[in-house]
Amino acid sequence: MAEYKAPLREMNFLLHEVFAADELWARLPALEGVADRETADAILEEMAKLAANTLDPINRSGDEEGCHWEEGVVTTPKGFPEAYATFCEGGWGALLGNPEYGGMGMPKMLGAQVEEMINSANISFALYPVLTAGACLALDAHGSEELKQRYLPKMYEGSWAGAMDLTEPHAGTDLGIIRTKAEPQEDGSYRVTGSKIFITGGDHDLSENIIHLVLAKLPDAPKGPKGISLFLVPKFLVNEDGSIGERNAVNCGSIEHKMGIKASATCAMNFDGAKGWLVGELNKGLAAMFTMMNYERLGVGIQGLGASERSYQNAVEYARERIQSRSPAGPQQADKAADPILVHPDVRRMLLTQKALIGGGRALSTYVAQWLDIAKFGEGEEKKKAEALVALLTPVAKAFFTDKGLDCTVLGQQVFGGHGYIREWGQEQLVRDVRITQIYEGTNGIQALDLIGRKTVANNGAFFELFAGDVQQFIDSQVDNEALAEFIQPLATELQRLREVTARVLAAAQEDPHAPGAASVEYLHLFGYVAYAFMWARIAAAALPKTGEDSFYSGQVKTARFFFARLLPQTKALADSVDAGSATLMDLEEELF
Amino acid sequence: MAEYKAPLREMNFLLHEVFAADELWARLPALEGVADRETADAILEEMAKLAANTLDPINRSGDEEGCHWEEGVVTTPKGFPEAYATFCEGGWGALLGNPEYGGMGMPKMLGAQVEEMINSANISFALYPVLTAGACLALDAHGSEELKQRYLPKMYEGSWAGAMDLTEPHAGTDLGIIRTKAEPQEDGSYRVTGSKIFITGGDHDLSENIIHLVLAKLPDAPKGPKGISLFLVPKFLVNEDGSIGERNAVNCGSIEHKMGIKASATCAMNFDGAKGWLVGELNKGLAAMFTMMNYERLGVGIQGLGASERSYQNAVEYARERIQSRSPAGPQQADKAADPILVHPDVRRMLLTQKALIGGGRALSTYVAQWLDIAKFGEGEEKKKAEALVALLTPVAKAFFTDKGLDCTVLGQQVFGGHGYIREWGQEQLVRDVRITQIYEGTNGIQALDLIGRKTVANNGAFFELFAGDVQQFIDSQVDNEALAEFIQPLATELQRLREVTARVLAAAQEDPHAPGAASVEYLHLFGYVAYAFMWARIAAAALPKTGEDSFYSGQVKTARFFFARLLPQTKALADSVDAGSATLMDLEEELF
Repeated sequence: MAEYKAPLREMNFLLHEVFAADELWARLPALEGVADRETADAILEEMAKLAANTLDPINRSGDEEGCHWEEGVVTTPKGFPEAYATFCEGGWGALLGNPEYGGMGMPKMLGAQVEEMINSANISFALYPVLTAGACLALDAHGSEELKQRYLPKMYEGSWAGAMDLTEPHAGTDLGIIRTKAEPQEDGSYRVTGSKIFITGGDHDLSENIIHLVLAKLPDAPKGPKGISLFLVPKFLVNEDGSIGERNAVNCGSIEHKMGIKASATCAMNFDGAKGWLVGELNKGLAAMFTMMNYERLGVGIQGLGASERSYQNAVEYARERIQSRSPAGPQQADKAADPILVHPDVRRMLLTQKALIGGGRALSTYVAQWLDIAKFGEGEEKKKAEALVALLTPVAKAFFTDKGLDCTVLGQQVFGGHGYIREWGQEQLVRDVRITQIYEGTNGIQALDLIGRKTVANNGAFFELFAGDVQQFIDSQVDNEALAEFIQPLATELQRLREVTARVLAAAQEDPHAPGAASVEYLHLFGYVAYAFMWARIAAAALPKTGEDSFYSGQVKTARFFFARLLPQTKALADSVDAGSATLMDLEEELF
Repeated sequence: MAEYKAPLREMNFLLHEVFAADELWARLPALEGVADRETADAILEEMAKLAANTLDPINRSGDEEGCHWEEGVVTTPKGFPEAYATFCEGGWGALLGNPEYGGMGMPKMLGAQVEEMINSANISFALYPVLTAGACLALDAHGSEELKQRYLPKMYEGSWAGAMDLTEPHAGTDLGIIRTKAEPQEDGSYRVTGSKIFITGGDHDLSENIIHLVLAKLPDAPKGPKGISLFLVPKFLVNEDGSIGERNAVNCGSIEHKMGIKASATCAMNFDGAKGWLVGELNKGLAAMFTMMNYERLGVGIQGLGASERSYQNAVEYARERIQSRSPAGPQQADKAADPILVHPDVRRMLLTQKALIGGGRALSTYVAQWLDIAKFGEGEEKKKAEALVALLTPVAKAFFTDKGLDCTVLGQQVFGGHGYIREWGQEQLVRDVRITQIYEGTNGIQALDLIGRKTVANNGAFFELFAGDVQQFIDSQVDNEALAEFIQPLATELQRLREVTARVLAAAQEDPHAPGAASVEYLHLFGYVAYAFMWARIAAAALPKTGEDSFYSGQVKTARFFFARLLPQTKALADSVDAGSATLMDLEEELF
């Protein structure tokens, strides 16, 4: 297996040459003096080292060993506690945190690159700090000042980890039917009772405390999603002085045996009258969760990118070293028994598909992160626009990056032939690990429903018009750029196709309640391909003038050409599938499945 | 997990109502009196029971336990030896065997259905008899009379198993560079020395002997693929009286730790001057292997179908029972807390995609098997045509069934949400198990090169014209069938598209050595979709007149409609990708990957 090398060149190119991140950072007051190019470079270089030297080396062994549960106690694999300590000592848990409580207040545009590296090196490991960061976001946005002061600094430090307790055995997508109860106590706290499943990092041996954010219902709460509240329930109660107090009535009943992410503890949690505190308003727990969901969901998308990049690096190295058969154009390395498989067109197709999907995804992730930063740190109209774009693009990023993440890791495994199927090369682990990203944090089907329902039909396409406007603005800005016409013209065609399909779906939704659901997944993929075309056109625009300087830039332009020629045609098929409507889906009687 | 129920109704419908198998059997002399509808029904029913009662129950446990290796001895999981004994007692190893040596001489059309059931129930188990059957085919076609008499009866019985020893650590796809040596001895035998890897069933505890068919080179053999010979090397030598003699110098050095098919022993085999006998002619070992490859490759394709069917059955049951959220059209089961997820359009899309791909694949598998039977048992021009069609369609079946097998098992897993990712439901095992089918027996990339190279470019499209002629003949036969026009018209369009793309690839291949490889995988997928459209149109033709009789038939017609409306549009995208040619693949410099 190749050693992981963080794609720093690509990341810096995107941040500074494609998206001019430092210009944005300089004009947002909260980031001015906090984030600049120099700081960003240093942070990325440090994480590149940590990922390669500390997280990557325990990825395969963590998969082999897995987590263990014994009498309520979860043990992570060898090396995980030490790596977690190193991670926390580096201050990484505080990277995006609120400076008022000890966070560094860095922008998500930078955080997205950092997350990609962590996930390339070790998705299972990444989940522990990712869940903590998610809990911090929810707490920061909705918790009382007292809760924030008490918990956030320790959580940013990493000495207390976080967990999100939503799912119950009978309630996954449909949280409205959860049964966990929270009973108000005289001291203002609550007694939380119920069972949760699939709780990532619900218990482990990495931190001295675990802070659970738990969805539960008051005894007299309204039925359905409008009766759900959010509670903070620590594993260990915290004394007045901030020290660790007695054990709370929250216990890990078992851990799941899973296809992958085996070093991440997926826990069944039991709350037996555990002491908890309300976060945010009563019966508005779902809304409180949703405020951090865009960050979390982009983060899961980035897991798909991270696994893809790791798989790609391994596959490229293997394709350079494995010799097998001759080039169709005749021997390329006549002194050897055969040529490296990289000479074969179909091996190049597999690798270029990975490269183009990763590059498009990394750019879109950075683009979405840019709008997340503007939504968080910006003002006025720009902030509103950013909030809308983030809402629209987040389900695309989450689902498309991870669906393509499966495709990419499968391709990277395929390049290895039989060697990809055995465990020692690590390629099959990436397939198993990335598979969960299509499922958790809202399945990709749910993301697609969110995109087409709440984010498009519900506002009659207003959010979509903001995105289309941004693409159109770029197209218009390049009309005189002849060198870029090979990308701009097809991009304009694709934007038009997406506009028309969107209009047809909006119209169909007026008459057919099944129309949005029937269109949803293919519509999201169509959207994803058009968004990647937008990204690759922007990359080409930044790279084309510099192809004489450095072959890196011509590599970007050639990859853009590959994307437009070989992958983008998917939009035609997807548009036709969307246009087919709901009839053929709903016609089949239940018993005939 | 749902209990496996063999899709006997679908199989019988295909055999007798779509393909009129008994008419074919009645007119082929070798099958007349051997295979008829009554016998076929009985055989399918028996295998349905064996699959459900004996093979399916040890599938999950076999995955958990895996095979074990200790000091050269391989142990299969609990229950495997007993199940293998039951399988052999039923005579299943002899089903397609040559009657001269104790086989039953049944047609592949029937065998294909039997294989699907075995693979649905337990792919790992299936591999042991499948490899034995493959070795029997090669031996029957190329072995001397003495070898056949000595080995075939025991192998059909199953008391001796078979293994195919091709791959070496440095030589997978490129068998021309193998290093295993065979030195001629004075008694006419050979001493075989070398190391082989990835040998399925190379050692195990199921049978009293294992008969290896080993590719090796004589010391003075020509370089490359034309210097390869095939040898029979038994684990235990066989005495003159047919009893088991002394141990031969063939040993299992280790077994692989793999992503899936964990109950199938994948062995590294060492031959240390092992005694072997030549099979077929010297230096024509690869050709000898290729004669049985069409059977083997279709068999691997059928593994993809089998896993898909199993995943589909589980997913349908889950979608009927899991209640979560409400139908977009309002509550369907108002007395429950939520509706079954089968009401949701996107869940139906996932299930119908599985159903349509499995149904199309099962039909194509039966169609290819029909031509295999005509190639084997037919005469004259029809036999020649059959051989050409089998050569053309086998790589399509192998690669398309298994690529779609991954898609189908991933969809079946996705229907389960988070429950699909944990091991206990079995859905994730199907994904891991089916993944190997895209790799072994020639990777799907190699299948695609075979289709476009040796099977199309090499004969300037002559084989393709035979297939296109068969589709055209069906279209012409239905021009007056108005009820079928909804399928016939798009089928004609797709056939024309495939003809044109084929012509363009043939033309490009004249000028660009990279053109076939650049087109290969998307071309194969395009071919696969058109072939499935042909199949679904034939299914619809058989089912439409009977929709009043039984809802089974309307289910078939509705699934055909779904296939044409939602899945077939893929051909547009694939044709565009093929037409993009090799330029964007070959332009990128090696160091820029």
